[in-house]
Amino acid sequence: MTAFTNADSGKSARSDDRVEYLLRLADDRLVLGHRLSEWCGHAPILEEDIALANIALDLIGQANLLLGLAAKIESRGRDADGLAYLRDAIDFRNALLVELPKGDFGVTIVRQLFYAVFAMLQAEALQRSTDQDVAGVAAKAVKEFRYHVRHSADWVLKLGAGTTESHARAQNAVNELWPYTGELFLADDVDRAAAESRFGVDPSEFESSWQSTVRDVLARAGLAIPETAYMQRGGRQGRHTEHLGHMLAEMQIVARSHPGASW
Amino acid sequence: MTAFTNADSGKSARSDDRVEYLLRLADDRLVLGHRLSEWCGHAPILEEDIALANIALDLIGQANLLLGLAAKIESRGRDADGLAYLRDAIDFRNALLVELPKGDFGVTIVRQLFYAVFAMLQAEALQRSTDQDVAGVAAKAVKEFRYHVRHSADWVLKLGAGTTESHARAQNAVNELWPYTGELFLADDVDRAAAESRFGVDPSEFESSWQSTVRDVLARAGLAIPETAYMQRGGRQGRHTEHLGHMLAEMQIVARSHPGASW
Repeated sequence: MTAFTNADSGKSARSDDRVEYLLRLADDRLVLGHRLSEWCGHAPILEEDIALANIALDLIGQANLLLGLAAKIESRGRDADGLAYLRDAIDFRNALLVELPKGDFGVTIVRQLFYAVFAMLQAEALQRSTDQDVAGVAAKAVKEFRYHVRHSADWVLKLGAGTTESHARAQNAVNELWPYTGELFLADDVDRAAAESRFGVDPSEFESSWQSTVRDVLARAGLAIPETAYMQRGGRQGRHTEHLGHMLAEMQIVARSHPGASW
Repeated sequence: MTAFTNADSGKSARSDDRVEYLLRLADDRLVLGHRLSEWCGHAPILEEDIALANIALDLIGQANLLLGLAAKIESRGRDADGLAYLRDAIDFRNALLVELPKGDFGVTIVRQLFYAVFAMLQAEALQRSTDQDVAGVAAKAVKEFRYHVRHSADWVLKLGAGTTESHARAQNAVNELWPYTGELFLADDVDRAAAESRFGVDPSEFESSWQSTVRDVLARAGLAIPETAYMQRGGRQGRHTEHLGHMLAEMQIVARSHPGASW
């Protein structure tokens, strides 16, 4: 309670929480959008090149809106671009799952399934946010994530039922990525505060829906879930893998080498 | 006339011409789409990153449809992906303008203006193709190219009226790219045959519209057109710069290292 005895610091603590919460939403999308855009021109099939680029665009578009909201609440003079291009890795709030390298097509697609089901459930809940801006972004996002779920689930089924090699690669992807799924549902004070004020939602509330949807797709694809007791964590608090730093160096170089440039 | 005395060889000559004509349309879009996609995650502004990626997607989407039409007419068992990923540079039919490296943002935007005005006029004319498939692709493309023209013209005006540096870079881009614009309007037997059968259009017919639109934008941006007598050419006949080879090596490596793979 001491943090809230002074009305001003109380307000600021609450708006910090909201900014922190929005950064978690935005950074998942920004980082995964950039990972997907690494496929641009490198997918083995034109149609798929186009599909992945469209999904990347949806994610980066949502990130742009959410960073804009964070910037508005923060009122420290940074805009969405400043938040995207001028923060260091330690200030990013994405889950570790989305920052891992794009890997082969199997890794990309299995990660899409894991993330898209999470993000769809999250967006469905966020449509009921008491913040109109958040609810608005979520309403648009739900439609996009439903397509992302369909796209990735279709591919997981194809890979699982495909050649021996495609099945093996999909299984490797599941084994590699599964330990990063737990973090998506870890709730801390920021999430609980957001859920309490109904600005946001507590991710642990939709873990069981996620589990049943994802397990159903994997079962139909003939893919097993690895026995993993240990789940990776840290991204929401800024403790990232080295991969994020490398990605940000690439992504931020143009903006950082022309500070304040109008183009 | 001799080429048409035998009905079969006549038919085959005519369908070869149509394939050749479609490849010119498709390859302009495929190559420029890939050049634009090199900006993915590297534009200095999130909004612009999204805009360029959207334009790249429009182009690659159109290329996919046009390569599909070419594959159907050719009936040699290659599909759109085969045409995109398994041809060598010498078999590409794009104009040299679109294969030049993406350069800085000035080069990218000035090229967009030059190409988009050309492609918009071309698509407007192709809507009247006697081939329903071609007319259909063109009708959709017109809307997309109108947006590409607006987007690039707005940026050229901004860069021209911007800082000393942005103006200088835009002027350098005009100087560098202008000698590649002449090739867009060179008509050879393939174009003339396509125009005669009303399958396609002769690009020389809309050169004067292109000149007046582009010169108007450049004049308003305070950008001068260089005095260039010599115009580059050769792309339509498969004589490309080294840049195309490097780009294709990048673009085709995944498909070529997994021949016939289902993913």
